Parts: sequence; structure tokens; C-alpha cells
Amino acid sequence: MKNPNHTLKVNLADRSYPIYIGNDLIDDPAIYRPHIHGEQVLIVSNTKVAPLYLDRVVSALQEYRVESVILPDGEAFKTLDVWQKIIDTLLEKRFDRRCTVVGLGGGVVGDMAGFAAACYQRGVYFIQVPTTLLAQVDSSVGGKTGVNHPLGKNMIGAFYQPQCVVADIRTLDTLDDRQLSAGLAEVIKYGLIGDGAFFEWLEQNMDRLMARDPVLLAYAIERSCADKAEVVAADERESGKRALLNLGHTFGHAIETGVGYGEWLHGEAVAVGICMAADLSRRQGWIKVSDQSRIESLIGRAGLPTAPPESIDANRFMSLMSVDKKVVAQRVRLVLMKGLGESVVTDAFDQAELEATLSEYGRSTR
Amino acid sequence: MKNPNHTLKVNLADRSYPIYIGNDLIDDPAIYRPHIHGEQVLIVSNTKVAPLYLDRVVSALQEYRVESVILPDGEAFKTLDVWQKIIDTLLEKRFDRRCTVVGLGGGVVGDMAGFAAACYQRGVYFIQVPTTLLAQVDSSVGGKTGVNHPLGKNMIGAFYQPQCVVADIRTLDTLDDRQLSAGLAEVIKYGLIGDGAFFEWLEQNMDRLMARDPVLLAYAIERSCADKAEVVAADERESGKRALLNLGHTFGHAIETGVGYGEWLHGEAVAVGICMAADLSRRQGWIKVSDQSRIESLIGRAGLPTAPPESIDANRFMSLMSVDKKVVAQRVRLVLMKGLGESVVTDAFDQAELEATLSEYGRSTR
Repeated sequence: MKNPNHTLKVNLADRSYPIYIGNDLIDDPAIYRPHIHGEQVLIVSNTKVAPLYLDRVVSALQEYRVESVILPDGEAFKTLDVWQKIIDTLLEKRFDRRCTVVGLGGGVVGDMAGFAAACYQRGVYFIQVPTTLLAQVDSSVGGKTGVNHPLGKNMIGAFYQPQCVVADIRTLDTLDDRQLSAGLAEVIKYGLIGDGAFFEWLEQNMDRLMARDPVLLAYAIERSCADKAEVVAADERESGKRALLNLGHTFGHAIETGVGYGEWLHGEAVAVGICMAADLSRRQGWIKVSDQSRIESLIGRAGLPTAPPESIDANRFMSLMSVDKKVVAQRVRLVLMKGLGESVVTDAFDQAELEATLSEYGRSTR
Repeated sequence: MKNPNHTLKVNLADRSYPIYIGNDLIDDPAIYRPHIHGEQVLIVSNTKVAPLYLDRVVSALQEYRVESVILPDGEAFKTLDVWQKIIDTLLEKRFDRRCTVVGLGGGVVGDMAGFAAACYQRGVYFIQVPTTLLAQVDSSVGGKTGVNHPLGKNMIGAFYQPQCVVADIRTLDTLDDRQLSAGLAEVIKYGLIGDGAFFEWLEQNMDRLMARDPVLLAYAIERSCADKAEVVAADERESGKRALLNLGHTFGHAIETGVGYGEWLHGEAVAVGICMAADLSRRQGWIKVSDQSRIESLIGRAGLPTAPPESIDANRFMSLMSVDKKVVAQRVRLVLMKGLGESVVTDAFDQAELEATLSEYGRSTR
């Protein structure tokens, strides 16, 4: 764990790609070169990240014809209208189908840049340069791209794999604490899904991660990506096992929709969602009370909330959850825990226990 | 060739699907049943086709929860805005990710319904019920979906394969003559790309096809789909051989863009494009003068134009062609003929000869 520079391969047959993890990678032309095939590169970034890193990425790509498009910052702007600005730019600049779209920023930028790459001329090359911990451990693997709709999150999109992912740990230096914590929510999630040893490692090292130790961060990113890559390789299009990655997300999406996109960070909502999944799992007798406590404690140490906002009561939770993508023909399936580090996708839980969890966490009975 | 009912398999590994060709297929529940997996079906049609066939398809699907969305008719409405109506309907009706989108209509409906299926929740099931000859022989095979952009045709889209295609020859009874001819342009194209024997069959049978002989139409549809399927199976994502299918399309798209979408039918523009490709091929000495004459004659007998509209001169042609998707880094590649029934994708033609063809066909020198 001395050298933080790693390369992780995501195995997806002819859509396999590397994730580069390390320091100052975004300045290195050699990182990008094998993955750019035409002469034209469009960098998609936002008003927050562009002032920090755009010039450096442009310099590294100076052998190409580089253009950029800067989007407004935040989940509230992850819309078809904003996405169309990327498409408009590609057309106005007369980019051809061998061009490359680079997403420089967090998950929102990556999702929109990737979806633009997926749809422009029915698919052009895509490179991800995630600059938040959340994007580095989540959007880096899996190929999910898309935008939100007023009636639901991520309802419009595509599965589309990048040519490579460049996860530069140094870009985390400029991340605010709240964003760092939001990323840690997903990191904790990987431990809970199927990697109990990683969960224990996180319990031992959370304080140093919160202090942004670069070597430990690199390890946490690599292990998170490896855990996710294993699940995705087994199920690229989310018909089965991949749904495990949604641990905490059905509750979490309900929170995000309920408070309006952009109020809560995705990772914060997922953190609460994980607590709610743990609560329901404990009610079912699948995990111990002490397990639930350890989970809540680790989430709290990561600077994350463990309860939803007061504006969402139990009934509103149920209503919001019924439009979630994970609902198959109106029957709610959830990712729940059968032990610490062992999650399952199931609808075989007691509906009354779900309601008990929602009442516990919804405002109505607090 | 007595019985017009055929099934053709398009071989694309785990995305393989059947094309059913025959009479009164749209009324048969058994045709659809193996290809619908959830309980929810959204039929996408338009104001022209829905009054003719929507009720019949709804009846055949009565064992499911069926909704419909009716789009305005015509290429001018193949836009992101109109496409969003499909997505909005899916969300308003709370369709889940196991739902099926059925495209009932011509190419525009099929392209938009398919692109909605490709993007809704990152991909749901899709069934094509093409009701024009053009859609039956073109959109049936290849998985191209998408919408137009003010700066270019089909610039936003996805490769997305249907579960099956239901090509009901009886639906051609209500097709007007101009639309029938537009479909025949693509049929002739398949002969010219790589099936000289089919070209000769078309020379022998064009009059009976124009008279809508159902048995001959079924044969022409099946052979066209088989020819296209062979090319697509070799190159699903259009990196090489598949570009052959664009014979006549680079010139044709320039015409469509130049006159504004919806003025000329796609097949009419392609017909002229084929004539222009033949002209350039003859100038290169690759086909004989008599071959060019046979091609123009057959296109004329199919009720199709052989010259572009007067509003497009040679310079406008060049400008329009430089934003075409088939342009790789600003260098124009064209599908040209090396013989009757043998086409190639090439940029190895004399630029002066291209300009001669454009001058010949553009208004400036007429």
C-alpha cells in the first residue's frame, strides 16, 4: 500500500476497460493516448470543477482538437435540457463519430457526458475523469449513464462503458467534507454487500480516511471498484446480482425525490437508506442488534446522516418507492442484509415490518 | 412463393430476433406473446396509422395492460421534444423496467419508439410493427433508433434491437403510392449493394410490385431483410461493412437536410442519391454507361425521382455533406459501385469527379 498508483481492469468482454487510480494522473498525456481514436475531444465539466482542473486536462490533451462545454453544477441540472447542450456543442463543432467525450467532474457530469457519448451519432468514445470520491467508487464501474426526469431519478439513460476511467486522488484535495462523506457512504456499501473484511478494515481506518490519507484512500477506491466490478461483470445489465448494488438506494432515492433533487447529496440519502435496510433486516431477524449498531456507528463516523429529513413521513415513503426502477410490476423488492457483509435482493420480507421501519424513520411517529 | 407467411431470423448472438412476414399478423396474439415479458405494453403510433390499426393491435394484446401514445405524423416531428412525450407517458403510467414498447407505424414511429425503449430506465423491451414498405425492409433490421437534430438527421440515437418485428403485408394496402415507391428505393438498394440476381428479379417484376401483388411483395421484403441482416450480422455497430447500407444515403441525407425534413420522403432522397452514386461510379469508370441507365430506369419505373430538387446547388451539396455521420475526420467516404450488384465503401475516388457529379445534379449548371 505504499504506492498509490494502481490499474484495475473491469472485465466485460469486448467492452473491458482499465481504471487508473493514483496521483496527478489527469496531467499525463500517456494516460489518455491509448484511449482516444479520432482527433476531436470534447471535455464536459461544470462551473465548480472546470476552474480547478479544466486547464490541466486541456494541456494533457493538446495533441488533439479540444473543445469544452461547462454545465451548471448540481443534481438539479441533471436534466435532458442541460444534456442537450452537450449534444448541441458536438454538432455545432462538427464532431464526427470517432470523437471522444471526456467527463471531468462528479457523478452528475459523468452521467450526462456518458449519456451524450452513448447517444451522439448512436455512440462515440467516452473517457471518465471522476473528481469526487463518490464518482470514483461508483460511476467508475458499471456503465450507467443518464439524466433525471421530474417523475423519477435516472429514468432516462443507457448502459454505456467508457474507454477508461482516470481516478486522480489529488482531485479529492479540493473536495469539501460533505462530498467526501457522501463518497464514503458508497464505500461502506461495498463492505456490506459482500465484503465483510473490507467493512472491518473501514471500521479500523475510518478516522484516517476522514483525514484524507492518500494511501488509504487509494486502497479504499481500488477495493470498492474491484468489489463493484465483480458484481457488474457477472450481470452487466442489471437483471439479477447487480441489483445488490442498490443497497440503501430504494430508500435513498425516495429521500432524494421527496426533498427535491439537489437538497440532499446522493451519498447522504444512501447512508440513511443503508440504515433503514439494516433496520428492516434486524426486524426480520436476519442481522443482530449489534450489527445494526456497528453499521450506524460507522456511517456516523463517516460524517453521514442516519435519519431521513423530517419532511418525509411513512406514507410519502411508500408512495415515492412505488415508482422506483427496482419495482417489478408494483411489487417492492429490496436489498436487505442476511449478515454483516452479506446482502440479498428479496421481496420475501414481512410487509408489516417494512411499514414498521418506515414509521420508525418517517416523521409521522417520531 | 405461394404462401406469403415467412419467418426470418436476424442473427446477433444474444440479441437475435425473428422477423415475421405475412398477412393479418397484427391481429394474432400468438405472434406477440413469446416476446412480451412484463404486464405493461405501450403502443406508440401516429395520427395517420392509429385510426387504421391501433384498435386491432390493442385487441390482440388484451391480455396485457395496454396504453398508447399517438404522435404527430411525419419526419418533421422526429425530434427530442416529441420523443419525450413517449418517455413522459411511460413515467405517468408508472411503467416498470419489464414493460414493452410497441412501435406501430412507419420508420419515424419505429425510430422514436425504439429510442424511447432504449433509454427508458436504461432499456426496456421493444417490438416493431412496421406499416410501411420502407420500414418493413429498412428499420426491421439493424437496430438503428433515434431522432433528428436541427443540425443533422439521426444525430441522436442508439443501436437497440427489438424482441421481434411483425411485418404485416396487409398494412401496405393503405399505403399511398408515393410511400410504396419510397420503400422500393431501399429494396432496389439491396440489389445494388451485393445481390445482382435480386436486382435482375426486380427488373423483371417491378410492374407487379407496383401493382401490389402480395406474394411478390412478401418475397421482396423477405429478400431485402435477409440481404440487410447478412450485412448487419457481420457488423452490428457500423464500423465497417455495414456502411454499405448507406448507398445513396450521403447524397440523400444532404437532400433531406437541404429541403428541410418532411418535404421529401427518405426513400425519394435515397433514390436520387443512388442515381448520383451511380453517376460518380460511372465517371470513375467502375460501372458501364448501360449499368447507370438500367439503375435509373428501374428507379424511374418504381415511381421515384432521379434528380434532386432545384433548390440545392453544387456548393450547398458539399456543405451539407460535410456534417454527415459517414464523414470520418472531415474526409468524405462514399458508397460507390464497382459493378451492378457490387458496392464498396471508399474515399479513393477523384474529388474532381465528385464535383462533376454535384455540378451535374446541383442546380447551378443545369
